[in-house]
Amino acid sequence: MLNDLVAALDIGGTKIAGALVDSGGRLLARTRRPTPAKESAEAMSAAVDDVLRELTATDAWARVGAVGIGSAGPVDAKAGTVSPVNIPVWREHPLAADVRERTGGLPLSLIGDGPAIAAAEHWQGAARGRADALCMVVSTGVGGGLILDGALHPGPTGNAGHIGHISVDMNGELCPCGSHGCVETIASGTNIARHALTSGWQPGPDQDATAAGVAAAARAGDAAARAAYDRAARALAAAIAATATLVEIEIAVIGGGVAHAGDVLFTPLRQELKRYATLPYVRGLEIAPATTGTDAGLVGAAAEARKLIGAETA
Amino acid sequence: MLNDLVAALDIGGTKIAGALVDSGGRLLARTRRPTPAKESAEAMSAAVDDVLRELTATDAWARVGAVGIGSAGPVDAKAGTVSPVNIPVWREHPLAADVRERTGGLPLSLIGDGPAIAAAEHWQGAARGRADALCMVVSTGVGGGLILDGALHPGPTGNAGHIGHISVDMNGELCPCGSHGCVETIASGTNIARHALTSGWQPGPDQDATAAGVAAAARAGDAAARAAYDRAARALAAAIAATATLVEIEIAVIGGGVAHAGDVLFTPLRQELKRYATLPYVRGLEIAPATTGTDAGLVGAAAEARKLIGAETA
Repeated sequence: MLNDLVAALDIGGTKIAGALVDSGGRLLARTRRPTPAKESAEAMSAAVDDVLRELTATDAWARVGAVGIGSAGPVDAKAGTVSPVNIPVWREHPLAADVRERTGGLPLSLIGDGPAIAAAEHWQGAARGRADALCMVVSTGVGGGLILDGALHPGPTGNAGHIGHISVDMNGELCPCGSHGCVETIASGTNIARHALTSGWQPGPDQDATAAGVAAAARAGDAAARAAYDRAARALAAAIAATATLVEIEIAVIGGGVAHAGDVLFTPLRQELKRYATLPYVRGLEIAPATTGTDAGLVGAAAEARKLIGAETA
Repeated sequence: MLNDLVAALDIGGTKIAGALVDSGGRLLARTRRPTPAKESAEAMSAAVDDVLRELTATDAWARVGAVGIGSAGPVDAKAGTVSPVNIPVWREHPLAADVRERTGGLPLSLIGDGPAIAAAEHWQGAARGRADALCMVVSTGVGGGLILDGALHPGPTGNAGHIGHISVDMNGELCPCGSHGCVETIASGTNIARHALTSGWQPGPDQDATAAGVAAAARAGDAAARAAYDRAARALAAAIAATATLVEIEIAVIGGGVAHAGDVLFTPLRQELKRYATLPYVRGLEIAPATTGTDAGLVGAAAEARKLIGAETA
């Protein structure tokens, strides 16, 4: 029974989650702590230690053969460090070394949260059985990961697939990342709400000034709300088509809060995709909602770690 | 000595070239025919047959272990067919089956001309020794290919890396491909010349109304000519940064007629790249001119075919 489990860590801007994951992707033990993102590096490390201590104290720990980490990015898998945008107290923090020390030197993998979610969708979700896929999260930010030739392509530093920061409007708005016209400046939940508000949408008494509020208004027929989603759909379509043109993918899987808008997003997205995915080898590209839930980060980190013990994630 | 050579075919819009290529990438026998692109499918096949007949008649043919084809795209490596935009008489033409029949059933690979040039640059040129690279051709059109994890990534259909048809301006000009704001609509030689002309540039008595003419004028200080190259550089920079963000590359290699503009292109390109390649894991991206010449298509087709006989292209 030795080595049939992996330990997974999911480091996010609001929570640090951990689990032991079996060969079927089931979470046997799980724990979480709030992320003290702005307190101190020591507080962050203490929270990670707490999560690891709970996992290593389980009877099942003896069966763990590897550790997988998925972290808010950017990460540097080569250096073993993380510098998450949303966790300012960690810059080039040597997370891999810290975790390795606390887990008895087990083999360890480190990838970004976008690649982790792609690995989860490929193992358990809408990209299962697909050789080439893009999996995206459209939420407060926009991220993603790539499956190429049947396997996760995290890239040398673990950040590949970060579709939120490709430019689809080279003369467009300055992005906090420093670039211009990034997908995220148009299609993130925050920017969908902002665009709707500046276009004249006003949240009703029972609506929030959020992408979910805009989606509700769009469903009720509000023109400015619809236009904000159409514009986001166009940016996503251009970016998805660009990805398909560059690396050849058969499906784009979309999760995250904004995807909960359902048809308000997916209907214009499928229409816009026809305007951008025009070359013969990308015309057949499918779009599908993600099916893995809030555990996707853990499941994906586990999928990647399983490769280190020679296990298949069938 | 058996199987130390491969035969290579380069199918382009103006010529059909063939060669026998040794393990060092040297061309031992070579031949070419003009491409009867608009005559008939039969004339096209006859020209290919002529090239193959010359190659199979050589003494060295006995040493050939595989055949590599690089073709103007789009190609369909899965189906073994080609439908080159610039060769209208061939649509879903079963090129692989035709060539296989004429070469005694040798193992055969088929890739697009962009991936072929990337394979050549990786074997013999500016991307040698690089694990992850984008290699582009900026000429009448804009194409490219990707090296990922140390090997060519042609994609399932052999067209991956086709950077000329990713959108960097989602509300931009309609591209002949049907999409909008493609890199090619801004950065191809044809469109650089067109933009310069519509911005007020007038070719001098000894200048052609081509990208080369615009480059000469830019070098002489003409503002409209410079602006046309700066705009092309911006589109290329946005697209190269998008590629790096999506798949992680360490170098972008640029060849083709437009690259002959030298500093007129490369200086603004390196500046613009800083504006788009902003995330930590893409900031170090290098730009370099291609070093393989007009034989790149043959060399790259050969590089890919060598994999079929288990040979390394060191």
